[in-house]
Amino acid sequence: MTRTALVKPGMCGPNSLFVGEVGDWTWDTVSALCGTNAFDARNAAGDPTYLSFYYFHVRGSRDLHVNALTFGDELEVTSRLFGFGSESVLALHRIGRDGAQAGPLDPDRFYAFDDPGSIYVETFNRWIARSAPGSNEGLVKSSPVDFRHEHLPTLPGAYSPRRVYSHARSTGTFLDRKPDDPVTFTADYPVEPSRDLNGVGLLYFASYFSIIDWALLRFWRHRGFSVADFLGRVVLDQRLCYLGNANADSVLRLRLECWPAATNENAKENANENANENENEEIVNLVMEDRGRTIAVSTLHLLRRGDTDGDA
Amino acid sequence: MTRTALVKPGMCGPNSLFVGEVGDWTWDTVSALCGTNAFDARNAAGDPTYLSFYYFHVRGSRDLHVNALTFGDELEVTSRLFGFGSESVLALHRIGRDGAQAGPLDPDRFYAFDDPGSIYVETFNRWIARSAPGSNEGLVKSSPVDFRHEHLPTLPGAYSPRRVYSHARSTGTFLDRKPDDPVTFTADYPVEPSRDLNGVGLLYFASYFSIIDWALLRFWRHRGFSVADFLGRVVLDQRLCYLGNANADSVLRLRLECWPAATNENAKENANENANENENEEIVNLVMEDRGRTIAVSTLHLLRRGDTDGDA
Repeated sequence: MTRTALVKPGMCGPNSLFVGEVGDWTWDTVSALCGTNAFDARNAAGDPTYLSFYYFHVRGSRDLHVNALTFGDELEVTSRLFGFGSESVLALHRIGRDGAQAGPLDPDRFYAFDDPGSIYVETFNRWIARSAPGSNEGLVKSSPVDFRHEHLPTLPGAYSPRRVYSHARSTGTFLDRKPDDPVTFTADYPVEPSRDLNGVGLLYFASYFSIIDWALLRFWRHRGFSVADFLGRVVLDQRLCYLGNANADSVLRLRLECWPAATNENAKENANENANENENEEIVNLVMEDRGRTIAVSTLHLLRRGDTDGDA
Repeated sequence: MTRTALVKPGMCGPNSLFVGEVGDWTWDTVSALCGTNAFDARNAAGDPTYLSFYYFHVRGSRDLHVNALTFGDELEVTSRLFGFGSESVLALHRIGRDGAQAGPLDPDRFYAFDDPGSIYVETFNRWIARSAPGSNEGLVKSSPVDFRHEHLPTLPGAYSPRRVYSHARSTGTFLDRKPDDPVTFTADYPVEPSRDLNGVGLLYFASYFSIIDWALLRFWRHRGFSVADFLGRVVLDQRLCYLGNANADSVLRLRLECWPAATNENAKENANENANENENEEIVNLVMEDRGRTIAVSTLHLLRRGDTDGDA
């Protein structure tokens, strides 16, 4: 499925509007290809069921990344679904400006992530329903009766997101192994009922990105970096696994660990012609908890740029 | 111009996503009818110019209001532009569920606001550009060279937004006269660089709605009302005039005044069959300041519902 998209104020900026838009593209694609209206789906009991985000992976480059998008950019979006049974579905979105990689979306090419003119997004979604009215905890699996998936292609096993998110769920990171000696930072975020919830009262999947950015900004300030430095960051890669939702009165604890990227020196010495002297690659790992219950794990690979040296 | 819109997670909820979407509809309509691409407009000097929101008016009903929209709702949207010279433009949007008022958008019918199955939105926009790179203060008028407006109809003078917003700008309220003895509340909101800015680094017009809701929630908590009460509110009418922008490190002061609506008793005694006993109509007026400079004025007419009596 391909579409062109004109970037509008409601889908860009240093906020989570673009990931929200991509999420809508996943639901659009499922609605177009799987026989069910993802925006108004019901399970066998007649209750609403939601195509909730379980794993979200965004990959950009120095040339094109989420925060670089602005009004008037014209995007070519190619989306493809892969079958994972009746309970879940994987969507791949290749998003490029004019002249980016064109043609059908092939998994081997997608997972090579080798086109710096494209943003690559993977979303793995599961059908879930509330188990108790009014509560955002204890959500349960629940497919709509008319969801068709048998015709979807199978993703080559090497790319299965299940291995990736299972590792994140059990270890609290998407890294194979966390390096020693992290810089650590902890912040508490009260869920904001005036902006974090979605149209059915659940904590909106895109709000998790905003909450992570909120913590990241405080971590950068803590180290003496400026708001301009923060706004100038390049997120090369972000993985996010959603393990739970939260109620509107929750206070979330964000535990952050940070390391210089192991590739820093290589990146400067070797092939990367775009790297500049004021650029630092960092790995950030975040765990989001609601009263001790882990509700999300995210690992970012980002570039810190700008003139400020910080205090640290 | 008419369109149908399926309500998606990225454009609804107790947040400002829907007003952001309506803002994009204004820009879409101008792009379709006025010869310029509003998403990528340039002035005679070749600098970017933005179709900024100056006045925004949303009107709903108990039956259909912004916070009532949810996933899967199908909307019929009729939009019409009216000419206000080379510097500005007025858009009217009539937004209804199936079966709402149909047909051409006539100003007399629009301003009667008499269809409880429609949300009515007026936006008055002005072309502005930055006067200093990197600063969000001192924005100046600046039209794109290819903006065509001569063919647009003229709005009957009785409905001109200029009288309305001029009054708000000079008096700090959209009310003809503020009643005596307001309940007052003040809160300071630090602009949040991780979510309040748009794709060109300006404070996003929809964020003003979020910031007002942020203050309103704190005012309700201060009076002993619950988050559930807040989420259950019905905004019957909100007017917002944008008098200035703000930088990412600004701390905004919100001065709020509240009165019971003069119509409370009438509403209960008279024709309003939908009113219930636990419903209170309130008028709220807010002034948003950045270091003493007023950057926005907003007046809301809302229904507070729910079981909580509050402390006040």
